[in-house]
Amino acid sequence: MITKPQLIALDADDTLWANQPHFDQAEADLKAFLAQYGTPTELDEALRQVQIENLPLLGYGAKGFTLSMIEVAIKLTEGQVTGAAIQQIIDQGKKLLRFPIELLDGVEEVLDALTPQYSLMLLTKGDLLDQESKLARSGIGAYFSHVEIVSEKNEAAYQKILDRYGLQPAEFLMIGNSLKSDILPVAALGGQAIYIPYHTTWHIEQVTPPDTGIQYLQLDSLRDCLPLLLSE
Amino acid sequence: MITKPQLIALDADDTLWANQPHFDQAEADLKAFLAQYGTPTELDEALRQVQIENLPLLGYGAKGFTLSMIEVAIKLTEGQVTGAAIQQIIDQGKKLLRFPIELLDGVEEVLDALTPQYSLMLLTKGDLLDQESKLARSGIGAYFSHVEIVSEKNEAAYQKILDRYGLQPAEFLMIGNSLKSDILPVAALGGQAIYIPYHTTWHIEQVTPPDTGIQYLQLDSLRDCLPLLLSE
Repeated sequence: MITKPQLIALDADDTLWANQPHFDQAEADLKAFLAQYGTPTELDEALRQVQIENLPLLGYGAKGFTLSMIEVAIKLTEGQVTGAAIQQIIDQGKKLLRFPIELLDGVEEVLDALTPQYSLMLLTKGDLLDQESKLARSGIGAYFSHVEIVSEKNEAAYQKILDRYGLQPAEFLMIGNSLKSDILPVAALGGQAIYIPYHTTWHIEQVTPPDTGIQYLQLDSLRDCLPLLLSE
Repeated sequence: MITKPQLIALDADDTLWANQPHFDQAEADLKAFLAQYGTPTELDEALRQVQIENLPLLGYGAKGFTLSMIEVAIKLTEGQVTGAAIQQIIDQGKKLLRFPIELLDGVEEVLDALTPQYSLMLLTKGDLLDQESKLARSGIGAYFSHVEIVSEKNEAAYQKILDRYGLQPAEFLMIGNSLKSDILPVAALGGQAIYIPYHTTWHIEQVTPPDTGIQYLQLDSLRDCLPLLLSE
């Protein structure tokens, strides 16, 4: 099903390293702190609503997430939250900008095996400095000939990448953990896509794939790509 | 002094459109709100210190600026700032992400005149989504064959751009309002640079140019580039 691509692009967060668990933990801490102001469902709903409202303006990443968490705390406490508590939220948000990067199982082995035969691109969305910093902290930057950080991974963004690198869609393979961002837009353009689900997905990335017309491959682990991609 | 470049890159904020005045106003509003907690000099010093401390982690742009303003308010009020007041700071920060873009004098005329003869690049640093949104709001996106948004404008960043576009330094001309970010690193690489000061410069961008060894051209207005760049 996979035909040898000219370029393999890999998503970063939750494809190469753990990211969402850090954000899940920050949300859980905020919910514990706000427990007296609502049921778990009400807190979830407030968090979700503020994040969705803020997304078009604040975009993805830890800074927008932190501002949203502050807004949730102000809203649910009806403005009674203290400055000291908000400073704690900010400090926690800053931790999201510098946590040590833990590579997922098999990542270095797979990158090692692919680089002799393929050009690899790191293709991630989010905050520019934050994503660059995570790549630097990961120690795997040298595997990638290209790094592209975009504000949104939609068909237009992938088309721009194809144009920039002079590629036909079928010459491009995207590997990632988000159906919404890594798989469906690439498949819709006629590109190749390998979906490797991660155990936790941010609510905003959760989508149901269409029943028909979209072709992609789902694998359990990054390692499972190797037999499909390596020629003997 | 200018030799015909292969690519002209233009900075955006305070080169093509007004940006710093919006941030100056937000700072002035915060200082007015905090006036009882310190002298103007103390407030300035607190703002500057928090911004400098946060810059490596939060980077440039309105979201990091907003988080810094909240931290200043918490610090100077010793945690007494109310949730409602912090929401006001956030609302003001959000305004910095959607103010209407006012082009500086002559911008469209200059872009109109240059595009028939040159490839133009918009080359700006800051927050990815924020800078993309400003370009979209500006209405001048169509003049640019290339848009590059970087997290820092230093020699390494400019070298990457030169490599990506296959250019020798002397084939590249950068036009901008920041000596630190637009001019000195380009000139140090042997590129061409035109410095067009703006009436206000963020304190973190203020530098003293070295006395010797750096060549660049200073002009009063973007319009003054035209006679140097247009062939009859």
